[in-house]
Amino acid sequence: MTSIGSLTRAAIDDAAQQIEAFATRTPLLESATLNALLKGRILIKAEMLQRTGSFKFRGAYNRISRIPADERERGVVAFSSGNHAQAVAAAAKLCGLSAHIVMPATAPDIKADRTRGFGAEVILFAGDRVEMQAFAHNLARERNAILVPPFDDFRVMAGQGTVGAEVSAQCAALDVSPDAVLVPCSGGGLVAGVATALSDDFPSTSIYAVEPEGYDDTRRSLLAGERLINESGAASICDALLVPQPGELTFEINRRLLAGAFAVPDTETERAMAALFSHLRLVAEPGGAIALAACTSGAMDCRGRTVVIIASGGNVDPARFAHAIGTYDAR
Amino acid sequence: MTSIGSLTRAAIDDAAQQIEAFATRTPLLESATLNALLKGRILIKAEMLQRTGSFKFRGAYNRISRIPADERERGVVAFSSGNHAQAVAAAAKLCGLSAHIVMPATAPDIKADRTRGFGAEVILFAGDRVEMQAFAHNLARERNAILVPPFDDFRVMAGQGTVGAEVSAQCAALDVSPDAVLVPCSGGGLVAGVATALSDDFPSTSIYAVEPEGYDDTRRSLLAGERLINESGAASICDALLVPQPGELTFEINRRLLAGAFAVPDTETERAMAALFSHLRLVAEPGGAIALAACTSGAMDCRGRTVVIIASGGNVDPARFAHAIGTYDAR
Repeated sequence: MTSIGSLTRAAIDDAAQQIEAFATRTPLLESATLNALLKGRILIKAEMLQRTGSFKFRGAYNRISRIPADERERGVVAFSSGNHAQAVAAAAKLCGLSAHIVMPATAPDIKADRTRGFGAEVILFAGDRVEMQAFAHNLARERNAILVPPFDDFRVMAGQGTVGAEVSAQCAALDVSPDAVLVPCSGGGLVAGVATALSDDFPSTSIYAVEPEGYDDTRRSLLAGERLINESGAASICDALLVPQPGELTFEINRRLLAGAFAVPDTETERAMAALFSHLRLVAEPGGAIALAACTSGAMDCRGRTVVIIASGGNVDPARFAHAIGTYDAR
Repeated sequence: MTSIGSLTRAAIDDAAQQIEAFATRTPLLESATLNALLKGRILIKAEMLQRTGSFKFRGAYNRISRIPADERERGVVAFSSGNHAQAVAAAAKLCGLSAHIVMPATAPDIKADRTRGFGAEVILFAGDRVEMQAFAHNLARERNAILVPPFDDFRVMAGQGTVGAEVSAQCAALDVSPDAVLVPCSGGGLVAGVATALSDDFPSTSIYAVEPEGYDDTRRSLLAGERLINESGAASICDALLVPQPGELTFEINRRLLAGAFAVPDTETERAMAALFSHLRLVAEPGGAIALAACTSGAMDCRGRTVVIIASGGNVDPARFAHAIGTYDAR
């Protein structure tokens, strides 16, 4: 493990300062219609409005902008299904580093195109996620480049944690204490960061990870008390959330701080995309809508509660989005 | 004319206080990709994130919340293609007034449904806009209800002007002085309010109205120096922007403060909807995307300039939205 340090609220506050000039302080939005439907108060943290269209820019920029000047010519390498890819490409461009990004050949076209659009070289990889990760590590070694991991890195996690620090400040400004915060979960960096940021200010708030059915490794690992691996072969439209197992560093945090996790079927995730389109006029990708899906599906009971939903990203191909809003009219 | 007073910056600041507890301070967003495409700096005021999905809530609430307690049992009547309808319905509900809303039979289903969702009684009217307006005035007389006009009312205009006051503060916070502000235009209340708010703080900023082709009454009226009426029979997907002529009160302001106006074909408006989907992850209805369309079509030259776009609303049927993003892939 090359990541140094630990994940603390101080590290998150430091990350907030580091990224301030380039990251968007995304709004915490609310819909009276959605509140009425779920019989609670639902606050949506709209991270699709973040630079590069997902929260991932926060962690990538916090990591890459701290690379010392005399190491920047090495460039960076990353592996990602697409959101971390765009974030690393954009952060590297802002900092003047070259970037090579390994992405699965099945990644949405829009994510590969946009990553190239930030000037990165994209390598589409045909194997599974474990092989892709090994390939990227080899590539970094060969090029003597700096690998920017998607989640198992304390500076990346601290960057993602700024989402939680903002939620905390925004809830305080609204004078509400959230009963629960629901966070989309892949490797677990976002939820670890959010939980760390919130645990000081709102110790009684329950933090939940939300995963696609078949990729509920964090949910099962929390129950088992150890990191479990997903069975291969599951399919999900949540392309951003398909990691084989929880991160090593992230799981140590999540096992301490999370109240639990939900596994959501894709049909419910599409309904939540339609709800965000219809009630909040926001474009969410499947992985970005899944935390709301835990509520709209009824798995999470929101009645009489204040629930914060992290809507983590909005990079979705038009056809996928059109299908979701056309199939589930959320009027 | 029953509207009293005049439109001043003080009235707008007063409106901002009046609506503060219920209206959203919408973000001013930016996309590096869109900036690169247009070779300028484009700042998007995301009013689709406003309560009820458009800027109209601001004016409706500023008007209705000031109705004295002893007049509230009269209830309100409004006529609207749909955004003012929802705004009046929502504001009336918050203030405890009954609402009757006259809408064209051709209004998008989603707008009629949502208006009913706020507890208003919706009357679908089959005639043209002039007849619909007369019908609504009669209905208000018969019911002894208070008519809340969509634009020709100083309190409504002051409410819409809070969009401009926020833009002004947000530009100051970014330390930018906008070269131009482009505003969707129907009766002209929004652009009159925005121009009034900005004229003090940024006197050298050019304010433009943007209208659909065939409904460019404000553009032609500005050139003629008098209020002209659109020829009947034109069609446009911009259901929110189909008034027959400029407002009487609004035009007096707009003829003094506007630099000009653009008329945009629907095909360019759909492209702008796709661009907002793709680059900013925002859902815009046609009328909400038209100001950006003036830029992406090339009619407004953004090269080397800072241009603020008012994206005024996001109430759009899924099929209409899917068509726009499917037809014009803005990757």
